Amino acid sequence: MSELRREPVSGRWVIVATERAARPTDFKTSPQIIKSSFCPFCEGNEDKTPPEIMAYRDNGAPPDTGGWRVRVVPNKFPALQIEGDQNKRGEGIYDMMSGIGAHEVIIESPRHIQSLTSLDNGNVEEVLLCYRDRLIDLKKDKRFVYGLLFKNVGFAAGASLEHTHTQLIVTPIVPQLVENEMANAKTFYRNRERCLFCDMIQQEIDTNRRIIISTDNFFAFAPFASRFPFEIWILPKKHESHFENLQRGEAEELAHVLKSALIKLETALDLPPYNYIIHSAPFNVTESEYFHWHIEIIPRLTNIAGFEWGTGFYINPTPPEEAAETLRNAIP
Amino acid sequence: MSELRREPVSGRWVIVATERAARPTDFKTSPQIIKSSFCPFCEGNEDKTPPEIMAYRDNGAPPDTGGWRVRVVPNKFPALQIEGDQNKRGEGIYDMMSGIGAHEVIIESPRHIQSLTSLDNGNVEEVLLCYRDRLIDLKKDKRFVYGLLFKNVGFAAGASLEHTHTQLIVTPIVPQLVENEMANAKTFYRNRERCLFCDMIQQEIDTNRRIIISTDNFFAFAPFASRFPFEIWILPKKHESHFENLQRGEAEELAHVLKSALIKLETALDLPPYNYIIHSAPFNVTESEYFHWHIEIIPRLTNIAGFEWGTGFYINPTPPEEAAETLRNAIP
Repeated sequence: MSELRREPVSGRWVIVATERAARPTDFKTSPQIIKSSFCPFCEGNEDKTPPEIMAYRDNGAPPDTGGWRVRVVPNKFPALQIEGDQNKRGEGIYDMMSGIGAHEVIIESPRHIQSLTSLDNGNVEEVLLCYRDRLIDLKKDKRFVYGLLFKNVGFAAGASLEHTHTQLIVTPIVPQLVENEMANAKTFYRNRERCLFCDMIQQEIDTNRRIIISTDNFFAFAPFASRFPFEIWILPKKHESHFENLQRGEAEELAHVLKSALIKLETALDLPPYNYIIHSAPFNVTESEYFHWHIEIIPRLTNIAGFEWGTGFYINPTPPEEAAETLRNAIP
Repeated sequence: MSELRREPVSGRWVIVATERAARPTDFKTSPQIIKSSFCPFCEGNEDKTPPEIMAYRDNGAPPDTGGWRVRVVPNKFPALQIEGDQNKRGEGIYDMMSGIGAHEVIIESPRHIQSLTSLDNGNVEEVLLCYRDRLIDLKKDKRFVYGLLFKNVGFAAGASLEHTHTQLIVTPIVPQLVENEMANAKTFYRNRERCLFCDMIQQEIDTNRRIIISTDNFFAFAPFASRFPFEIWILPKKHESHFENLQRGEAEELAHVLKSALIKLETALDLPPYNYIIHSAPFNVTESEYFHWHIEIIPRLTNIAGFEWGTGFYINPTPPEEAAETLRNAIP
């Protein structure tokens, strides 16, 4: 089992592999996305993944057979493992605990397609509902307090398989970055009795300089302080702290907005590597007035160098106002 | 001039280019390290850089001519500019200021060498003394509060020129990451009346599992919660908050330790891309009992993916105990 270790200077947590450790030779040849003719995520290869956790199917076929539309399996090389106790412990100034949690893969299509944008709107909607269903299920396990849904597309964004998929990692502690966002949002709320994100949406609508897509219930824009060129955030217009409270009708509209935003990105930037990440409130926080879930889409066009590592500052060579204009006009 | 913008949810600052913005086509072809026969950092090409700020020379030759050993020039494409006022201002929920600061390049050798490890020990010592001298000089400008020295080696680490060099960026605000480290170290000190870093060094010496190099006055080890495989931290054993207080005798010993650590890294990992970053206390903090300067060396062997962006967690496949053993035994 891996070990969660806390770095005492920064306070960040690191998942340290303690078995099957990577040795220097493992890094000497650049890893690449596996582009073999065989793909473990394709329909027909269900026996090449760990047994499935759930799937949406047309027929009543048994698990780990074909006929599915979205399929969830445990990650074959999990960062955190589902079995075990937290076993929190210290060693002098250091803090650690066992690497328990969940690490699942949501396979978004039985066909070997490489982008969510190649799916029909209805299929994207089902992917979003699957995200929701997995969070609702994992939230029942009281050892876990946070669930992060994220997607890596392209080698530079950390993908190792090209078949379109999303990952879900559930952790036994609230990550520092999430704690920090929650704390900032709480301070804003305490001072003004309003949600920071709701205010941000209103200000963006009023200034109308960074909007990319706006529908009845969802809003996609280039954030004022985008870290990365062509960064996009998507938020529900109605205040909601937890992604897993997504309703069926909302999922249909969000599927349209998410797919449209990704199509714009792929069109403007010629299929760039990117990550998207769903920021939602922790499991152990009930309906929150101050936090507002959102999706952050970050194209990976620039390298992170020493300055960013040493300061937490980012250098963005493309003003978000120009990025928004480019993306608004990007029609395939 | 660029603009510093504060992201209200995370609190991080972003330097947004507002002139000469990068457009989508600027990202479509992967940038590479410039490997032309012409190098603006080589002796003889002094007129191809902005006028020099300082240099260590054998003779009394005038600036911007040959005969130097270490030479400092402004970055030709600065992230922050030296002229101007902060002009702090707000716009609704957003905060911003002008992108003033300094962005310098320390060219470590007149010859076209690609690694600090190819320099003689005496030359490495001069590079370190040059770091110190630039911090002491820039600290006099009361608009600036923080100076970050960092090195990018290899394309994956953000380098664009291969000639061995270091960058120095000086900022008008203390970066969030530094504030956070200072706050954690201060809390530790308040609770125990001891420096967190001094305690860490003592515990590492006692447990003797992650030491890489130990001399009379400096200590190199693989941190307990290393983010990256083969990460190395170097600290002075004697408590000191500011790198710029480095004494001449210490610089000689630090040069030996830094060069040895980098040689071990290059030997074990076959010339990996890496960054190193000097974490020092802000200019506006006087001698601090709780902060302790240190150098973080981070090899760039793994990609940062959605999970890291969404949580601030890192996944490290190589336990630091194994990394330390490999590096201790790495002799060219």
